[in-house]
Amino acid sequence: MTSTSAAPVTGDGVLTTIAEFDQWWAGRHRAGRFEVTRIPFAELDTWHFDEATGNLGHDSGRFFTIEGLQVEVGGGAVDWQPIINQPEIGLLGIVVKEFGGVLHCLMQAKMEPGNVNTLQLSPTVQATRSNYTQVHRGATTRYLDLFIGPDRGEVLVDVLQSEQGAWFWRKRNRNVVVRITEDVPINDDYRWLPLHLVRELMRVDNLVNMDARTVLSCMPFAQPDEAVQSKGTSFADALTRSYLSDKALHTSGAVLSWFTEAKTMCDWSVRLIPVGEVRNWSRTEYEIADDAGRDFRIIGVRVEAGNREVAAWTQPLLEPRGQGLAIFVTRSINDVLHVLVQARPEIGLLDLVEMGPTVQLLPGRDPADVDDPFVKGVATGEVGRIRYDTVLSEEGGRFLNALTRYRVVEVGDEFPVDVPPNFCWLTVRQLMDLLRHGHYLNIEARSLLACVHSLW
Amino acid sequence: MTSTSAAPVTGDGVLTTIAEFDQWWAGRHRAGRFEVTRIPFAELDTWHFDEATGNLGHDSGRFFTIEGLQVEVGGGAVDWQPIINQPEIGLLGIVVKEFGGVLHCLMQAKMEPGNVNTLQLSPTVQATRSNYTQVHRGATTRYLDLFIGPDRGEVLVDVLQSEQGAWFWRKRNRNVVVRITEDVPINDDYRWLPLHLVRELMRVDNLVNMDARTVLSCMPFAQPDEAVQSKGTSFADALTRSYLSDKALHTSGAVLSWFTEAKTMCDWSVRLIPVGEVRNWSRTEYEIADDAGRDFRIIGVRVEAGNREVAAWTQPLLEPRGQGLAIFVTRSINDVLHVLVQARPEIGLLDLVEMGPTVQLLPGRDPADVDDPFVKGVATGEVGRIRYDTVLSEEGGRFLNALTRYRVVEVGDEFPVDVPPNFCWLTVRQLMDLLRHGHYLNIEARSLLACVHSLW
Repeated sequence: MTSTSAAPVTGDGVLTTIAEFDQWWAGRHRAGRFEVTRIPFAELDTWHFDEATGNLGHDSGRFFTIEGLQVEVGGGAVDWQPIINQPEIGLLGIVVKEFGGVLHCLMQAKMEPGNVNTLQLSPTVQATRSNYTQVHRGATTRYLDLFIGPDRGEVLVDVLQSEQGAWFWRKRNRNVVVRITEDVPINDDYRWLPLHLVRELMRVDNLVNMDARTVLSCMPFAQPDEAVQSKGTSFADALTRSYLSDKALHTSGAVLSWFTEAKTMCDWSVRLIPVGEVRNWSRTEYEIADDAGRDFRIIGVRVEAGNREVAAWTQPLLEPRGQGLAIFVTRSINDVLHVLVQARPEIGLLDLVEMGPTVQLLPGRDPADVDDPFVKGVATGEVGRIRYDTVLSEEGGRFLNALTRYRVVEVGDEFPVDVPPNFCWLTVRQLMDLLRHGHYLNIEARSLLACVHSLW
Repeated sequence: MTSTSAAPVTGDGVLTTIAEFDQWWAGRHRAGRFEVTRIPFAELDTWHFDEATGNLGHDSGRFFTIEGLQVEVGGGAVDWQPIINQPEIGLLGIVVKEFGGVLHCLMQAKMEPGNVNTLQLSPTVQATRSNYTQVHRGATTRYLDLFIGPDRGEVLVDVLQSEQGAWFWRKRNRNVVVRITEDVPINDDYRWLPLHLVRELMRVDNLVNMDARTVLSCMPFAQPDEAVQSKGTSFADALTRSYLSDKALHTSGAVLSWFTEAKTMCDWSVRLIPVGEVRNWSRTEYEIADDAGRDFRIIGVRVEAGNREVAAWTQPLLEPRGQGLAIFVTRSINDVLHVLVQARPEIGLLDLVEMGPTVQLLPGRDPADVDDPFVKGVATGEVGRIRYDTVLSEEGGRFLNALTRYRVVEVGDEFPVDVPPNFCWLTVRQLMDLLRHGHYLNIEARSLLACVHSLW
């Protein structure tokens, strides 16, 4: 097994400026060796289709399987699709430490086979349970001992959060932030970045990966503390107050009641079925795809890499067609910025309904096809002033080239405060309070919240 | 259809004393007409066994079904049992109102076929979605409009909470408390009781039903406000401080992290199977039971009643053998009473792990058989001073004679503050904060919390 990145760097591994970051990042690109090749399913060397069900799984029975899913809406309409079943709870962790009074995050330059650009900025640790119990017999996971066991740091965040409800069956990961004070050896693939620099990098297309974004969204610190006194009326002023103010449109009790009502109203019945029984989807030598050619496909790839735990492997990936869209509509209400979330059922979520973006379109869905007149103008870009607009990647370990355009728009008095029953205005502070618990914000909403964090 | 209780009472329907309550209650017993007869499955007149699966369901496809469940622990040991699958979310609601500055609850004298004593004190509304959408074509649910729709009261509590994880497949109900100020006509089966009187009645065996207890456990009000200043060292003083004090042994962040760890460690894999495939359980003309005769049975009953929504029906019930046991160990730590909860996986819970009582034994399990030396003395009654000890009933609409002994015990310095990793000390205030959300306290722990509320 070859590795290009075994030696700790000299110095403390702290980067301070974008220029320093760019230099390190370019070096990581040069050091990496990574090739992804599409292969027929027959060449997946440790994966096989179950004869009875048609499900695609790993020979060890671990990692994940491609299964089928059936959803029945209110005892009426029925739909089917393949879905990724990955029951293990993985760990997504960022280590933070203060240098000169400034909070820094230990970030990783990590290659994932599905990344459109190979390398993305990732959490300190990103490990499935299979990874860290070493089912694949590769190297141990670096820095894992800072999160688990007797040497772990001070825990600042530790919560199970969901992932894509459209593609995963009840997948959740443990989002963890620990603070350390001691020195740790810094490997070439890792650097300490000031939190504000990480947030600045959120503006770069396809750089900060999904796993980093979900952990960053939960970070409850390094927020403004006195700017709340500002009387300013700018977007930034209203945003600052949104982290701090008690002047929310709805009490937290009213928000919880609204959400309970939305969950109660969802009458979907969802269950796993053999992928061979998924109607209107077919399997060829190279892919499992919907006959209409509008949805995603399941494909197989061969990966050859230099700085992953194992040097070469084959695996299935889910490949969407086209690009997704996720938009948070924000509006100043009583001088405090509010975010408009939607209570949104998704087939793969454990509790079915979580709060999602104001607009959330799966890849391939045309904004012009949005039916709901309430959000159509926002979806097509005709309504609202754009405050954030960046294309970011979803999980490169399971999805191939899955890109979503994340957008935060500001609206004014032309947009109503009274909204349809599946929507609710929350302050950023209220969103952060909910994020201490699972089952509230879906992964797309959490990505957008990380984008919002980058705006002040 | 006959009804013995159609006319509103004269007066305001407020009861103030135990004597007044006893008089009303005796009247309700006399007014009721209720007979429950065991019948062979063949006489269940709107229920049938599915030929392919052996599952027992209602002809309408609604209400609930008896299915099978398979649990695999860590990819190793496998176990099976029947389970009740009731996917609809019901509503358990208590209306509260102030009379003369005192908070009163509108409580119902409600008959349930499985109640050991027929009649128990129940929430204002206790309705499955089938009830209130009238699948059974009976009368409308009284007072439901105070909880749903344009006339509803001020919402004080509104949260989905789980029910018995050993017997229900992912069942949850919506626990709601609304406050009204206007007058409503009071039916003979309903009375306004001061909250303190309801709590006093919690000391009576098999009186306050499970649905009332879970709603009462979530009530965040009518708690002490200044007694916290008391320097007293009694149990009552420490309990009072437990509702108010910030002096918890663990921060709320540490509690959430402990719980996340417990959920991550659970490697159970659970799925529904046809009840016909449940091993070591058999179906006879009268029951589905485990061959060893140690667990529960599924039976059929005919019910004839005067004051239910429909006058006669047949249905399956789950009948446990013996009595359950649920114990909260409490201890003063830094002069604040703490409750010892256990992170406990249960096969039927949506998220598998919730916080349960310190000791929780299913009916028929002998306390002497408890393996864990840490809690064995508590289970057998050798350790701790008993502060509450009452037998209460579980859900009489689904279970026949399901009784649990609920006990709150106080321990002192002889009991360690350092506890095994599946246990954690929380203050009552911390428990109440968690109860604003679902997926935290299981039904037995919530019943015990309602018992704790009755202790001051």
